[in-house]
Amino acid sequence: MERLVMKFGGTSMGAVDRIQRVARIVAAERRPGRAIAVVVSAMSGETDRLVGLARGAAGDLAERGERAGPQGFWDEYDVVVAAGEQVSTGLLALALRAQGIPARSWQGWQVPVRTDEAHGVARIDDIPAEALATAIDGGEVAVIPGFQGVDADGRVSTLGRGGSDTSAVAVAAALKAVRCDIYTDVDGIYTTDPRIVQRARRMERISYEEMLEMASLGAKVLQTRSVELAMAQRVPTRVLSSFVEPGEPNPGTMVCDEDEIVEKQIVSGIAYSRDEAKISLVGVADTPGVAAEIFGRLAEAGVNVDMIVQSHARTPGAQNIVFTCSDRDAVRAVETLEGARDRIGFETAQVRRDVAKVSAIGVGMRSHVGVARTMFQALASKSINIEAISTSEIKISVLIDASYTELAVRALHSAFGLDAV
Amino acid sequence: MERLVMKFGGTSMGAVDRIQRVARIVAAERRPGRAIAVVVSAMSGETDRLVGLARGAAGDLAERGERAGPQGFWDEYDVVVAAGEQVSTGLLALALRAQGIPARSWQGWQVPVRTDEAHGVARIDDIPAEALATAIDGGEVAVIPGFQGVDADGRVSTLGRGGSDTSAVAVAAALKAVRCDIYTDVDGIYTTDPRIVQRARRMERISYEEMLEMASLGAKVLQTRSVELAMAQRVPTRVLSSFVEPGEPNPGTMVCDEDEIVEKQIVSGIAYSRDEAKISLVGVADTPGVAAEIFGRLAEAGVNVDMIVQSHARTPGAQNIVFTCSDRDAVRAVETLEGARDRIGFETAQVRRDVAKVSAIGVGMRSHVGVARTMFQALASKSINIEAISTSEIKISVLIDASYTELAVRALHSAFGLDAV
Repeated sequence: MERLVMKFGGTSMGAVDRIQRVARIVAAERRPGRAIAVVVSAMSGETDRLVGLARGAAGDLAERGERAGPQGFWDEYDVVVAAGEQVSTGLLALALRAQGIPARSWQGWQVPVRTDEAHGVARIDDIPAEALATAIDGGEVAVIPGFQGVDADGRVSTLGRGGSDTSAVAVAAALKAVRCDIYTDVDGIYTTDPRIVQRARRMERISYEEMLEMASLGAKVLQTRSVELAMAQRVPTRVLSSFVEPGEPNPGTMVCDEDEIVEKQIVSGIAYSRDEAKISLVGVADTPGVAAEIFGRLAEAGVNVDMIVQSHARTPGAQNIVFTCSDRDAVRAVETLEGARDRIGFETAQVRRDVAKVSAIGVGMRSHVGVARTMFQALASKSINIEAISTSEIKISVLIDASYTELAVRALHSAFGLDAV
Repeated sequence: MERLVMKFGGTSMGAVDRIQRVARIVAAERRPGRAIAVVVSAMSGETDRLVGLARGAAGDLAERGERAGPQGFWDEYDVVVAAGEQVSTGLLALALRAQGIPARSWQGWQVPVRTDEAHGVARIDDIPAEALATAIDGGEVAVIPGFQGVDADGRVSTLGRGGSDTSAVAVAAALKAVRCDIYTDVDGIYTTDPRIVQRARRMERISYEEMLEMASLGAKVLQTRSVELAMAQRVPTRVLSSFVEPGEPNPGTMVCDEDEIVEKQIVSGIAYSRDEAKISLVGVADTPGVAAEIFGRLAEAGVNVDMIVQSHARTPGAQNIVFTCSDRDAVRAVETLEGARDRIGFETAQVRRDVAKVSAIGVGMRSHVGVARTMFQALASKSINIEAISTSEIKISVLIDASYTELAVRALHSAFGLDAV
């Protein structure tokens, strides 16, 4: 028996008529020899409404925010918000039955989707899927809430906002599904943001590694955790549109193992992120251990540092250290450093927030030289100044002035031959 | 350890500020040596919203309405609507914690509240409450969804609309609670409807039997099933107002064993119902078995017959049979009889819908004669014609023209000495 997992987000489940369309899409995928499980999000807007109620009832408890227990917020928050997905599963099961398709809902605690006890941001430990597999192999469509699980004490847990993609991939792995189809409001993964580059192309395939870089660099189509899980468990995952009528072509983009991509590009896509801040520490004492002190304290404060550039300062025996972090961490980063100014020893800490990170991504970089040169030349030809650089095996990122973002993305998309013909 | 169960309906839980007041009411009842479990309904309006979604998604499946299984409606309906109570429990647990009170929610499947498999109208089989008792005896307030349960297959079930009172009494019985306090939008049970009789009085106590008659005769404060259960399990149940601030007097009405009522009235209350129809079968053959034929067929059609009056017709060898049923069953009753006209044999079937039933209720009737006489005299003095009569050990009901309802209720309230001084 071939098993298929299909996942529909909140927009696709946003109203009764949309849920009925989802039922038609599921119906069109049913055929002899194929078993189907569907993972669904809460109806759009519902999770926000429930979060608002929970925060309202909790008052300042929500701010103190212990995970659980008599003074906790997050375990009961989970009880409240998980109700949104519960409603969706029941509604889709009903809509399927209304079309004559045997179906039933399985809540997180019924499957069970076992998680750790980090309420509100739980991680899936294990999905013992024997009962689920038996049910769907018997021809019944299972409808499972994304985002929901149950902890070791039998209490409801949630994976954190947007955890439904992760749920879908985890269920697909547990069911040994041939594929996990993620239906979204876009029709696939593009070589870059089509709002910036008109000639951006939908990719037929992209490797897990590339998708992971794309996701973590700002391409919002799939959540990073779901891609990590798909890669670790080798779950072929397809992104496709939930707005195409059943029967119409809807190939989407397959996220799969690198080996399954025959025609490899050197660079597959261009990503960008405006959620960046650049912090410059000027006049840092050039003594051993100073960098460890700086980045150790930032790590303790929960600041995720991305690029780091070290340079000599004008003052002899001093250096400048420049790093980037996400924009929302910038204030905390500076406060942390100012608080340790005596121990670190520096003259000034400056923040620049009007910066953007633009990245070229491609597994082909591993075996091709000259990618960096192409990139720098393309940017130089548009007079775009590079403020910092970071690289991985399959990615080159540059930090630039944010006002040049679109120009840079378009230049790189062309330079790497990604424009649609 | 003394255990107390408190129950709050949808109006009391209607918004975040109301839920916070419920938390204050619960807080005021906490004291050393007393353990508390709270049963809550969905926020007002929420169940209607969810029922609407479920019916929308199900289309005509909702009308076919099988209980469960691949063609069923009610099992997934239960999944959808149970979410309303789940949200309430989480919110109240958070509001309690925000006031420094240890609390947690227990869903129907967590307690567990075991029910049969009659989804949508399930009955509670059993509540193994050991874990719950241990938790509350340890000082933690348990917040439990009314209306919800779990069937033998581990699927969510609901008790039918308004089942939360029944949940509360069942939890109180399982916990061997000293009392079940039902907080409502009225401050107790009245001798009759205060909208009709200004001098109606709140009763301090009423017996289970009387309350059962009051509830089944139209007094909407408690659901009939919850009173039946309270009586069967001998759970002292108090009805009181959820709109009185904690600390203010709020005695309510205690529903309890007859033996605990010291000062017994002959008649305790006057109830009325306008949801009545009178059906007259004229010219029925006066042969053995004809009544069995008539009422057998009505029972098969699910028509609940109340009063029956048999009289001789003008035609020799024929009789007239008059009976009452609830107004919503009247059309079905007549259709059923017309469909069996050949087998029954009658001339005409007439329906009158502008009738009302007025009842005097009191356990004192058992040991006092003359109650019927007082009732008939009071009605006669106002020139109110009695169209049918039915009696039980503790109740006399009369059917009258509906336009005389208020007049009759006021006359009887006075005649039985119930008017407040």
